[in-house]
Amino acid sequence: MGSNGNKDSISNDTIGKVITCKGCVIAAVAYGPGQALVVEDIRVDPPQKMELRIRVLFTSVCHTDLTYWRGQDEAQRIYPRIFGHEASGVVESVGEGVSDLEIGDHVVPIFNGECGKCVYCNSSKTNLCEKFRVDTAKSTMANDRKCRFSTKEGKPIFHFLNTSTFSEYTVVDSACVVKVDREASLNKMSLLSCGVSTGVGAVWNTADVEEGSTVAVFGLGAVGLAVVEGARSRGASRIIGVDVNPHKSSKAQAIGITDFINPMELDKPTHQRIREMTEGGVDYSFECAGNLDVLREAFLSTHDGWGLTVILGVHPTPRLLPLHPMELFEGRRIVASVFGDFKGKSQLPHLANQCIKGVVKLDEFITHEMPFSRINEAMQLLSDGTSLRCLLHL
Amino acid sequence: MGSNGNKDSISNDTIGKVITCKGCVIAAVAYGPGQALVVEDIRVDPPQKMELRIRVLFTSVCHTDLTYWRGQDEAQRIYPRIFGHEASGVVESVGEGVSDLEIGDHVVPIFNGECGKCVYCNSSKTNLCEKFRVDTAKSTMANDRKCRFSTKEGKPIFHFLNTSTFSEYTVVDSACVVKVDREASLNKMSLLSCGVSTGVGAVWNTADVEEGSTVAVFGLGAVGLAVVEGARSRGASRIIGVDVNPHKSSKAQAIGITDFINPMELDKPTHQRIREMTEGGVDYSFECAGNLDVLREAFLSTHDGWGLTVILGVHPTPRLLPLHPMELFEGRRIVASVFGDFKGKSQLPHLANQCIKGVVKLDEFITHEMPFSRINEAMQLLSDGTSLRCLLHL
Repeated sequence: MGSNGNKDSISNDTIGKVITCKGCVIAAVAYGPGQALVVEDIRVDPPQKMELRIRVLFTSVCHTDLTYWRGQDEAQRIYPRIFGHEASGVVESVGEGVSDLEIGDHVVPIFNGECGKCVYCNSSKTNLCEKFRVDTAKSTMANDRKCRFSTKEGKPIFHFLNTSTFSEYTVVDSACVVKVDREASLNKMSLLSCGVSTGVGAVWNTADVEEGSTVAVFGLGAVGLAVVEGARSRGASRIIGVDVNPHKSSKAQAIGITDFINPMELDKPTHQRIREMTEGGVDYSFECAGNLDVLREAFLSTHDGWGLTVILGVHPTPRLLPLHPMELFEGRRIVASVFGDFKGKSQLPHLANQCIKGVVKLDEFITHEMPFSRINEAMQLLSDGTSLRCLLHL
Repeated sequence: MGSNGNKDSISNDTIGKVITCKGCVIAAVAYGPGQALVVEDIRVDPPQKMELRIRVLFTSVCHTDLTYWRGQDEAQRIYPRIFGHEASGVVESVGEGVSDLEIGDHVVPIFNGECGKCVYCNSSKTNLCEKFRVDTAKSTMANDRKCRFSTKEGKPIFHFLNTSTFSEYTVVDSACVVKVDREASLNKMSLLSCGVSTGVGAVWNTADVEEGSTVAVFGLGAVGLAVVEGARSRGASRIIGVDVNPHKSSKAQAIGITDFINPMELDKPTHQRIREMTEGGVDYSFECAGNLDVLREAFLSTHDGWGLTVILGVHPTPRLLPLHPMELFEGRRIVASVFGDFKGKSQLPHLANQCIKGVVKLDEFITHEMPFSRINEAMQLLSDGTSLRCLLHL
């Protein structure tokens, strides 16, 4: 590994073959809900038409991995499965028809793909591709609805979120692979696979926050902090961070919040405090906590007339939106944002370049690093709220 | 009255005086919830600072008048009160400080004013003025919280929606008076006070519907039909009208719908039918029925990825929005629109000009005309769904 975290050499002797040799592919396989991942040898098929096989060099754990690993969505308890969707690596081989990527390219897999051809990809209003949009229920490849992974005994291992990056090698549709500049440090580029893009994009694309705007961010995990970074990079005049965990304050301040609110320490609703601090409310609020009561506070904390709330948190609850229709007539708006509204293949390279230039800073997001073999430890760190992102080296 | 419906001559002998002489000011006064309006002589004070007194020449009844006349909002049972907010007329006299309007100007009063100076009026993102925005609870003038109307016996009569147009003369804040081109037929300009502006503006401003877009309109009353007219004027390729009353179809077709759906005649949910008709859903839907189940159908009838639902209907219900937060992640958006997002004083003159030029057609909206003395009949016609707008001549 070079000093910039890149590994440039890919040997050619695996191309076109199932990678099977002992020790060639180590993956972390989930065999059941909440069961410790088993780090073991697996087999990885060659890429088919419009697919690529990627040598994963770095991967990190996101809360969505934890949710589906634990089987919290009972309808989607699919095992054995390889989780992981934040990663970076190098193209090992390309399937038939792939023309925009070649062996050795530095790449980032994305869970919300872009085929570039469908009615959605041709619309400037959405980044939800018809075939390759985020879909947690999808567990096989689009080409043949089969798996490219199997156990040593030949049993299929299912895919996750178009990516399955908890493996030294993974097969991904070309719609879900973004080429990044070789100047970028591949280790940090892993963050662009999900959390950082989601947060920064929500500010840049979904809300389009203007210089001098006021912003409130509810929930200061990796996504919330990426919102802070996005708002800072846009020149927001005030960035209010909200979290019930007081330990979140210092990291958030290092990234760019101007004020920290711990709702547990207030004697009034959070939105009321924020309205007092900002002459009637912030211009933009971001819900990154996945909690509907928090969502309502985020909504009410914006200024009437023009306030916009962006939902980034996942809400696995039967409860409906806690908003009255007439409240919308006060001019507050609420929208959701998937993958920061980035069209991955066409727009993420620009974000990568902004990271190279230092417009967006990534250093604060990687709080831990360790070898891939310690992945269960990395999952625990995230689950405990101890880490933001723990970068696993493969 | 001239052939274009205008009365240009204003005598000068009332300026600065309380208009009191018997027969000088006839108004329709509401004395209690749902009680027939009493058409009688009243007294009207001169305009104070930044106010105008208007000789109302035409007025029409809107559902909001019916709602508050009936006292459906129990917290706002305020009587005696002069209802009415759709009108057109001529400036009779101006109060101190009014510089943008003069005696004889052709004007339209607006319930959602524009002071031009507050933080809201200075924002391009809202038409909700700090002081003169729509407020059904407001029943006196902003200057002194007093009434400009009184009974012959001197008892105050309360104002409604900044306008109170069911009177030959009314006093209105200058922020709530729009000057229109003398070429415009004043009788039709009455429609711009509320219904037509609300519907056309929701299409032009709130949704910004593009040429070739597909549109569904739920509820084909005056506001819904104004949405149809707005969509037609923007060159929408398909305009689907939805109403449970089959009699609404022919008028809607005359204005511009391309398809009519009566949900009572379907064996499936309306949104499903609309998705079948439009390759996945319309680009824009408009809720003009004031019903939350209809609102949900309107929301689901748009295309995922980019569909936008605009709420225009008033929802006097304790029920919350019938939407799940995760449904927003499918890329459908929902917003509300007040007065078509027109900033009244600065932007309505353009709409009036578009009416003069025939870009927006108003003829179909006036279904009845009668003398002001028959106002109770006009209210019944609207309540029965028989009229769209009944124009009352004063």
